[in-house]
Amino acid sequence: MAERIALIGGTGKEGKGLAFRWAQAGYDVVIGSRQVEKAQIAADELNQLLGNIKNPVTGLQNLQAADWCDIAVLTVPFAAHQAILTELKDCLNGKILIDVTVPLVPPKVTKVQFPPAGSAALEARDILGEGIQVVSAFQNISYERLMDEGDIECDVLVTGTSKDARKIVLALVEKAGMVGWDAGPIENSVVAEGMTSVLIGLNSQYGIHNAGIKITGINRE
Amino acid sequence: MAERIALIGGTGKEGKGLAFRWAQAGYDVVIGSRQVEKAQIAADELNQLLGNIKNPVTGLQNLQAADWCDIAVLTVPFAAHQAILTELKDCLNGKILIDVTVPLVPPKVTKVQFPPAGSAALEARDILGEGIQVVSAFQNISYERLMDEGDIECDVLVTGTSKDARKIVLALVEKAGMVGWDAGPIENSVVAEGMTSVLIGLNSQYGIHNAGIKITGINRE
Repeated sequence: MAERIALIGGTGKEGKGLAFRWAQAGYDVVIGSRQVEKAQIAADELNQLLGNIKNPVTGLQNLQAADWCDIAVLTVPFAAHQAILTELKDCLNGKILIDVTVPLVPPKVTKVQFPPAGSAALEARDILGEGIQVVSAFQNISYERLMDEGDIECDVLVTGTSKDARKIVLALVEKAGMVGWDAGPIENSVVAEGMTSVLIGLNSQYGIHNAGIKITGINRE
Repeated sequence: MAERIALIGGTGKEGKGLAFRWAQAGYDVVIGSRQVEKAQIAADELNQLLGNIKNPVTGLQNLQAADWCDIAVLTVPFAAHQAILTELKDCLNGKILIDVTVPLVPPKVTKVQFPPAGSAALEARDILGEGIQVVSAFQNISYERLMDEGDIECDVLVTGTSKDARKIVLALVEKAGMVGWDAGPIENSVVAEGMTSVLIGLNSQYGIHNAGIKITGINRE
C-alpha cells in the first residue's frame, strides 16, 4: 500500500473515476493536468464526493505529478498519447506506467484501428524504452459506474512488459473493486484495446451504455 | 435453412464439433479433408454419435466440399491457411467463408502474433478478394464441449466484411446452441483471434481447459 498514484491527464471521467476508487481505498492519489488549476478543480470535486478520507486527492501539473508518483496512469485521448509520453519519459524512469489509452480514430470508433507500433500500449513501450514497465489495463470499463460506487460488471484484462508489474497492477484493480486477470505480455494489449471498439459498437446496436466482458470457466473466488 | 455447410479441413476437433452441432440442427453438412478417406471416417464417426438424423454427414475432398457448399467453414492450423485459401478461391466465388483460424505461432501460443495482413481473417479477405464474403467467428470456443451437447459457457464474437454476412453467421451460431454478437467489421477480427492467446494463458495459469468470455450489460433474451 505504499504506492503513490498519479492520473496523468486525469481530469476526464476515466481519470477521475479511477482516482475516486483508489483514494477511497486509501492510496495517495494525485490528478495531473496540463494546467494545474484544472487539476485542482478536479481534485476538489473528488474530495467533496469522498468526504473525510485520510489522504485527500491533490492536483498537480502533469510533469510534477509524474515526478512525484510511483505509478503513473495515463488517461489521455489517443491524439495526445505520443507527445505526452515523450514529455514524461525522464520523470518515469524506474516506475510503472499504466496505459489506459484506446487508439480510437474518430469518426469510425467502432472499427479497430491500431497505430504502426501495433497498439497504444506497444507505442508507449517503444517510446519509454526498457527503464519503464508498461502495463495496459482498464480499457473496457464503463467509467460512469466508477464514481457511483456501483458494481462494475466488467472484468479488467491486464497485460504488461513484466509479470511483476502485472501483479502490482492486478492488486490495484482489486483495490478499485474490480476483477482483473493476468492476460499476458504487452503484445496482448491489442485484445483489450480492440475490445473497446467492439463494445462501443454493441452499445450503439442495443442503445445501452455499459456493454462489458467477463471471463468465464474460472472460479471467481 | 437452405444452407449447405462444408467444414474445410474439418477432421480436427473444431471442425467435427461444429459439424456435429449443425447436423443435429438439420443442416446439410459435409466434412472436407485433403484425403477423402479421412473425411469419410470423420463423417462416419459423427453419424454414429448423431444417431438417426434427416441428413447424415458426408465426407469429401476439400475442393469438392468447397464447390458443393453455400457456406465454407475453415478450420485448419494457421500454417496451412494461406495455401488452402489460394487453392479454394475459385470454388468459393459468391459464397461466404467463415474463418475459424487463430494465427497461433508455436511455441509462444500465449502471445498474440498476427500475420502481416493484420489477422488471419484479414489475410483471408486479402487472398479471396471482393467476390467472397469473409466472416470471422468461433475462435474462443472450447471444442470439447461441442460434441457432448453441453452448454457452451462462451459467447461468439462475429466480425465480417458485410453486415448481411454477419447476420447469416449469427443465425448459424444460434442454431449451434451458442450466443453470438455482431462485433463489427472484419478489422475487428483481431479481438477474438487475440483473445484465444489470452484464454490459453488463463487456462495454463489456472490448470483448466475452458476459460471463455461473455458479453455483459446486455439483456441476453
